[in-house]
Amino acid sequence: MERLPGFRDFYPEPLPHKDVWSADARQYIFGKWRDAARRYGFREYDGPPLEPLELFTTKSGEEIVGQLYNFKDKGDREIALRPEMTPTLARMVAAHERNYKKPIKWFAMPQLFRYERQQKGRLREHFQFNADIFGEQDASADAELIALLIDTLRSFGLTAEDFVIRLSSRNAWNDYFTNRGGKAGQEYDFFQIIDKLERTPPEESQKKLTALRFSLDDVNAFINSGMPTTELASIIANLTARGMGDFVKVDYKVIRGLAYYTGPVFEAFDRKGEFRAIAGGGRYDNLVKLISGGKVNLPALGFGMGDVVLLELLKARNLLPQFDGGMDVFVLIEDETLRPQSLKLVQDLRSSGLVVDYTLTTTKPEKQFKRAQELKAAHTAKLDNDAYVRIRNMNTREEVVAGVNDATNHIRR
Amino acid sequence: MERLPGFRDFYPEPLPHKDVWSADARQYIFGKWRDAARRYGFREYDGPPLEPLELFTTKSGEEIVGQLYNFKDKGDREIALRPEMTPTLARMVAAHERNYKKPIKWFAMPQLFRYERQQKGRLREHFQFNADIFGEQDASADAELIALLIDTLRSFGLTAEDFVIRLSSRNAWNDYFTNRGGKAGQEYDFFQIIDKLERTPPEESQKKLTALRFSLDDVNAFINSGMPTTELASIIANLTARGMGDFVKVDYKVIRGLAYYTGPVFEAFDRKGEFRAIAGGGRYDNLVKLISGGKVNLPALGFGMGDVVLLELLKARNLLPQFDGGMDVFVLIEDETLRPQSLKLVQDLRSSGLVVDYTLTTTKPEKQFKRAQELKAAHTAKLDNDAYVRIRNMNTREEVVAGVNDATNHIRR
Repeated sequence: MERLPGFRDFYPEPLPHKDVWSADARQYIFGKWRDAARRYGFREYDGPPLEPLELFTTKSGEEIVGQLYNFKDKGDREIALRPEMTPTLARMVAAHERNYKKPIKWFAMPQLFRYERQQKGRLREHFQFNADIFGEQDASADAELIALLIDTLRSFGLTAEDFVIRLSSRNAWNDYFTNRGGKAGQEYDFFQIIDKLERTPPEESQKKLTALRFSLDDVNAFINSGMPTTELASIIANLTARGMGDFVKVDYKVIRGLAYYTGPVFEAFDRKGEFRAIAGGGRYDNLVKLISGGKVNLPALGFGMGDVVLLELLKARNLLPQFDGGMDVFVLIEDETLRPQSLKLVQDLRSSGLVVDYTLTTTKPEKQFKRAQELKAAHTAKLDNDAYVRIRNMNTREEVVAGVNDATNHIRR
Repeated sequence: MERLPGFRDFYPEPLPHKDVWSADARQYIFGKWRDAARRYGFREYDGPPLEPLELFTTKSGEEIVGQLYNFKDKGDREIALRPEMTPTLARMVAAHERNYKKPIKWFAMPQLFRYERQQKGRLREHFQFNADIFGEQDASADAELIALLIDTLRSFGLTAEDFVIRLSSRNAWNDYFTNRGGKAGQEYDFFQIIDKLERTPPEESQKKLTALRFSLDDVNAFINSGMPTTELASIIANLTARGMGDFVKVDYKVIRGLAYYTGPVFEAFDRKGEFRAIAGGGRYDNLVKLISGGKVNLPALGFGMGDVVLLELLKARNLLPQFDGGMDVFVLIEDETLRPQSLKLVQDLRSSGLVVDYTLTTTKPEKQFKRAQELKAAHTAKLDNDAYVRIRNMNTREEVVAGVNDATNHIRR
C-alpha cells in the first residue's frame, strides 16, 4: 500500500531510499526554529490543522479555493486543511488578545497543505516556521521580526555570503501607484504584475502595465532607484545597530503575492539565486479586523519559513550535521547469569539521562560489539560481576573499571 | 469565526480562557516523551496525517469507517485523517525494513483524528506518543517496551503510587478460549465481550457469553486466578530486575479492543481509577504481513499514550510546572540615545543563547520595569554608557556593573 501523492514519510537516518525524508533533519530544523524564537521572547501557539473553509476565503477571496485541500466533512461542513497559518493566528489573537500584554510575540511550526494539480515531485504539504508580532505599529517591530529571521538562518550556520533579505514596502508601491495616477480599486492588479515581474517576459509585463496606464520603464526606474522609504531606512538602521546590516538590502521587485500585506514586506533568498524564496513576510495591519468582523483592530506582521527550501539549501551548503541516535552507552551482556544486574545497569544509566541500548536476547559477544559499533555508541559497559563494570571509550579505546553505582560519572557526554 | 467542533487551540500561558489549551503544557509533554524514547534508543519517524482509507479498513475492517475522519479528495480518492499511527508505521516498516538492523525501535508523536457523533467536550483529535519494536519475538522486547512506558510516566514525576501497568495476554485468552471448546472464528467476538466486561452489567455479559457457550463465573474465576503465563512471568521478572516490579500487575480483565493484537497486551491506569487508560499497547505480530500483502513478516509490538488523559492526570496530581517564557534578561532602554548600543547588547545576549526582550519603542522607565516583572525576567540589564552595563538579579535584587562584552557571564541561568 502506498502513501498519498505529494505526502512525505520521515524515516530515521541513514535513509533507506531517496524517496523518503529524514525525520532527524526535520527535528533538527524544528529545534533550531524553536530555539531562535524563544531567544527572541516569542511564545509558542498552535491551532487545528483543519478550519472552516470560510476562514481562508474571507481573507484571500474565492480564487484560493482552487489551491486548497478542501472537502465536505460528515456533518456537511465545508472544511479545509490549512494552507497557511496566518488566518488561524488572526482568529486566535482576535478571540483573546485582551488577555495578553502587547506586543504579542508568538511562533508556531504548523504543517500546511495545498491541493494543486499534481506535478512530479511537487509536495502537497510542508512545515512552516511562523513568527508574528501583534500590537506594534512602529517599524522597530519589523526590525525585530527580520532580526529573528536572520538569526534563525544564522543558527544553521548560514552567513551573509549565503543569504540576503530583500526588503520592500507596500507603502512605497502604494505611493508610487497613487502618485502616477493609478485608479482606486486597481492596486491589487498592479501589485500582482510587480510580483510576477521577474518571472514574466518584459513585453507581457509592459502590456499588462499599459492596460493600467503604467510604464514598464518607469516601474523599472523606480525599482532601480532602490531609495529606501523613511520606514525602510529606520528598519535598516535598527538592523545595522545589531550588526546585521550585511544581511539586508532594499529591493522593490519584492512585493509579496498575498492580498493582505499593508506595509514593509520582505523575502529571504540564497545569494546565488539557486532556490526559491527561503522565507517571506511583512505587515498585515488590517487582517485581524477583517477576520474578527471589525471587533478587534491590531497592527500585525509576520513571516513564514518552509522546511523544504531550507533543507535543500542546508544540504547544498553542506551544513547538515551527521545524524545518529546519539548512543552514549551500549551495555554488553556476555555472561547471561548477569543479565538481571545488567538490566539494572541499563536502567540506572538511562535514569541518569544517558542514551543506552543493549541486545534484548542472548547474543554472541562479537555480534554485540558489532551492534555497538553500528549504533556509533560512545562507550560500551560490561559487568565484570555484581559490583564492578568495565567501561570502554569507543573512541580512545581507554578502559576503566568502576563500581556499578559510579558508572555514570565515567560516561559523561 | 469559530474553530471546528472537537478541535483545540493551543495558547501560551497564562491561559486566556477555560476553553483553550496550553501550548506550553503540550510542548512540555512532547519534550518528556521525546527524551524518554531517546534514552531507550528509540529513533523518531513520522508519516502523513492523511492516508488512503484502505490502509485503515484493511486492518480493522469496514466497521471502523463510522469513526473515521474520512472524505473524498479532489482526485476522487477515498482519504482518511489517521485515527491511529500503527497502520502507517506498519506500511513504512514493510517498505524499508531491510535497510534497518533489527530490532527496529522507533517512536512518533502524531496528531490523530476521529469523527464520532459530537458529544459535549468530546475531542476529534489528540496527540499520541507511539513507541514500537519490530523484529524481536522474545518477551524481553515486551519488557523493554513496558519499561519505556513506565519511565516515560515517571519522568513526569508520577510514581508507583500514581499508576500501574495492567498486564495481560491474548495468548492466555486464546488458550482459555480453545481449552473451553470455543469455536474457531468466534475468538474476536469473545475478546470483545472480555474487553467490555468492566463497563457492562454482569447479566448482559453472561447472556453474550452464553451465546458463545461460555460462563461468566468461569471467566471471572480465570481472571481472579491472575496466574501469569510463562511469558508474562518472564516480562515481570525482567521489569523487576530493573527495579520496576511495583509498577506492574497481571490483570486478565485487560484484553485490548483492536483486532490485531496477538500476544501480551497491557494498559496503564491511574491507581485511583479516576481516569480512562493513560496508555495501552501490546504485540501485533501479524500486522506487517497483512499490510504488506504477505511480502514482509516481522514480529511487532507497541504502545500509544494520548496527551489528553495524561494532561488531566498531571493536573490532578499537581505535577505540571509553572510555564512562562523563561525570560533571562529584560534590557531596559531609559536613554534613547543609547538605543543602538542597547540593540547590540540585546543581540549579543541572544547570540549567547539567552532569552532576551526589551521595549520596541520609547517607553517610560517604570513601565519598562513593570514589563520585565510581568515577563518574570530573571535579570534586567541597562547600559550606563557605551561601555558598561548594569545588571540586576530580579530575585536577589543584587546589582553589578560589567563591561558590555562581559555581560553574558553575569547572567548565567
